[in-house]
Amino acid sequence: MDKVFDIEIKKLRDNIDHIDRQILDLISQRLTQVQDVVALKKAHNIPVYHPAREEDLISKLRSQATASGIDADFMEEMYRVILRNSRMEQTVEMKQQGIKAGATVLIVGGEGQMGRFFSDLFRASGYIVRTLSEKNWNDVASLCKDADLVLLSVPIHVTLETIQRIAPHISPTTILADLTSIKTAPVDAMLKYFTGPVIGLHPLFGPSCATLDKQIIAVTPGRDNGKCRWLVEQLSLWGAIMVNAEPEEHDDIMDIVQALRHFATFCFGQFLCRKKVNLARSLEFSSPIYRLELGMVGRLFAQDSSLYSEIIFATPSRRKLLKQYVAAMNEQIELVESNDKTLFMERFSEVTQWFGDFGNQAMRESDFIINKLIERF
Amino acid sequence: MDKVFDIEIKKLRDNIDHIDRQILDLISQRLTQVQDVVALKKAHNIPVYHPAREEDLISKLRSQATASGIDADFMEEMYRVILRNSRMEQTVEMKQQGIKAGATVLIVGGEGQMGRFFSDLFRASGYIVRTLSEKNWNDVASLCKDADLVLLSVPIHVTLETIQRIAPHISPTTILADLTSIKTAPVDAMLKYFTGPVIGLHPLFGPSCATLDKQIIAVTPGRDNGKCRWLVEQLSLWGAIMVNAEPEEHDDIMDIVQALRHFATFCFGQFLCRKKVNLARSLEFSSPIYRLELGMVGRLFAQDSSLYSEIIFATPSRRKLLKQYVAAMNEQIELVESNDKTLFMERFSEVTQWFGDFGNQAMRESDFIINKLIERF
Repeated sequence: MDKVFDIEIKKLRDNIDHIDRQILDLISQRLTQVQDVVALKKAHNIPVYHPAREEDLISKLRSQATASGIDADFMEEMYRVILRNSRMEQTVEMKQQGIKAGATVLIVGGEGQMGRFFSDLFRASGYIVRTLSEKNWNDVASLCKDADLVLLSVPIHVTLETIQRIAPHISPTTILADLTSIKTAPVDAMLKYFTGPVIGLHPLFGPSCATLDKQIIAVTPGRDNGKCRWLVEQLSLWGAIMVNAEPEEHDDIMDIVQALRHFATFCFGQFLCRKKVNLARSLEFSSPIYRLELGMVGRLFAQDSSLYSEIIFATPSRRKLLKQYVAAMNEQIELVESNDKTLFMERFSEVTQWFGDFGNQAMRESDFIINKLIERF
Repeated sequence: MDKVFDIEIKKLRDNIDHIDRQILDLISQRLTQVQDVVALKKAHNIPVYHPAREEDLISKLRSQATASGIDADFMEEMYRVILRNSRMEQTVEMKQQGIKAGATVLIVGGEGQMGRFFSDLFRASGYIVRTLSEKNWNDVASLCKDADLVLLSVPIHVTLETIQRIAPHISPTTILADLTSIKTAPVDAMLKYFTGPVIGLHPLFGPSCATLDKQIIAVTPGRDNGKCRWLVEQLSLWGAIMVNAEPEEHDDIMDIVQALRHFATFCFGQFLCRKKVNLARSLEFSSPIYRLELGMVGRLFAQDSSLYSEIIFATPSRRKLLKQYVAAMNEQIELVESNDKTLFMERFSEVTQWFGDFGNQAMRESDFIINKLIERF
């Protein structure tokens, strides 16, 4: 490299640094304006997240970008990052707002991770939060007294007995709700042993989330929906997306979405371990897809084994499904043994047809994710 | 909502729109400066991607962000998007630059997707590109004549016979290279039937990529590395990351990274299809992780079945590995049948220990991806 090059590149880089400095100042100004919007909305009691406004803004920016010779997808991507950041800030602000602030919430299993997650949320929004565990079970009667909500956050295998034990202490004006990842048996038990309002909830996320923003909670109605409404609205206000289902439908879906998926991942990890695969070296040769898939496997094993055993072994119908799955794999291996590529391709295209449009959607979504991975790592 | 609110919110939103307009202008200015940097680098023949400069810039921006009360992670994320966009633009520019522009490249199977992908790249960088397929096989002698590189881009199952057929027509001063996803047998055959420089390549990505930017290509040396160097440098200059391995090591890794992973995904998709799972409904209840995992499955079935059958059935050692895998699953199902949670947890923690630090790394990486998914969808 020569002197002229050094001088010229320095000049250009200084220009870029100067531009970046101005962008940063503008981002800072933007955050201030967004905070003013939040304050105004709070004063008028208006929900903070406004999807339509976001999409309008994105559309406008896309056409402005195109007009200025900037790639519209790039501009959209950049603004999704900016908007998400302001939404997070707003959600942190809005967390404070309680639909029924001052009400009393008793969290059973409140010392577990999920229990603490919800304790913190309720407390931050002005609720009075009590917790119950084996340690203070002697006080169950006084802790249940005048509670507006009793929320069960206990492991699956003790859910039913906990419902039976606590129900007699709860007033029929209190809401009884649970957070178990299966819903048929818990909702049945709550309806059987308790006479007041009942609602089943299943948060589809772990307690390590920062906020409820866009997280999914399945809602299975039990009894007296009207009286449970404030709880559903509170969870929505915290940012959660509430999805309704009958308990049976919920459980059928979770047999696949949770039990089967986790079991398949468990088996894959076990096999890698048994074969002593050199992970670090295999990652050097990895397409982003494999890195991501291996990451999903690693993720499972970085978490609590008892949580996964609870999910996988939860019900006899689940265990039956897993057996069917392995039986189906045995059929596929016959195909490999006979080295029958034609049959493989036939079975493949059967599944392709069955997936239908989802296949293309999956390609688009995973392309997006792959680009994110390439960008980052 | 009242009038005062309407007026005030409009004012704040106008402010935000005005700020966004300025950000857009600055981004446009920034792109112009970056184009000047590219032009300058081209004039001085300097590689375009400068990782150290990027990391410096990110560090500086992070501390400036913190000083201005802006979340540093957010600022980093936003700039990763901006930098990736400029890198893409730069790579598009630099594509033009040929290490050995004017040289002749013969692509065998040049009408396949991967063949066309590489044809376009070589052509854009000033190479003379010829293609050979069954249609013009009669011209094989004249097409091979004076070629600097013969690059095989044919399906796995015809690779060996293609090597045997073409080798006698290639001059020993030409490089012979292949793009097959297995390496031992093709490299052996190239060394056996050809006496000139040999290099095995395996691009770890599909032909649907926009550029080679940060894509991985495995390199297995064959003969006369020095003479093959310009090819490796050309691929690097296009943005690819070149990873070296012996052919046998490469194939062992790909047994896992490709064959086993794809087979497991194939079986999962087959089972979903057989059970007629309601995909759309299950996605409504999905955590981002499941959406992503299902997306990976859908992605596989949206692609070419013959490509996957080629990969899965490629070698006897692969088929043996898949049998071992299903045998291991049969052992795991015994555990489910006996409903033995304790043993499950024991096996689980064995794998956790074996994964070691990778588990935490996987959590961090997949958390990042999950946030990206939540942001987008």
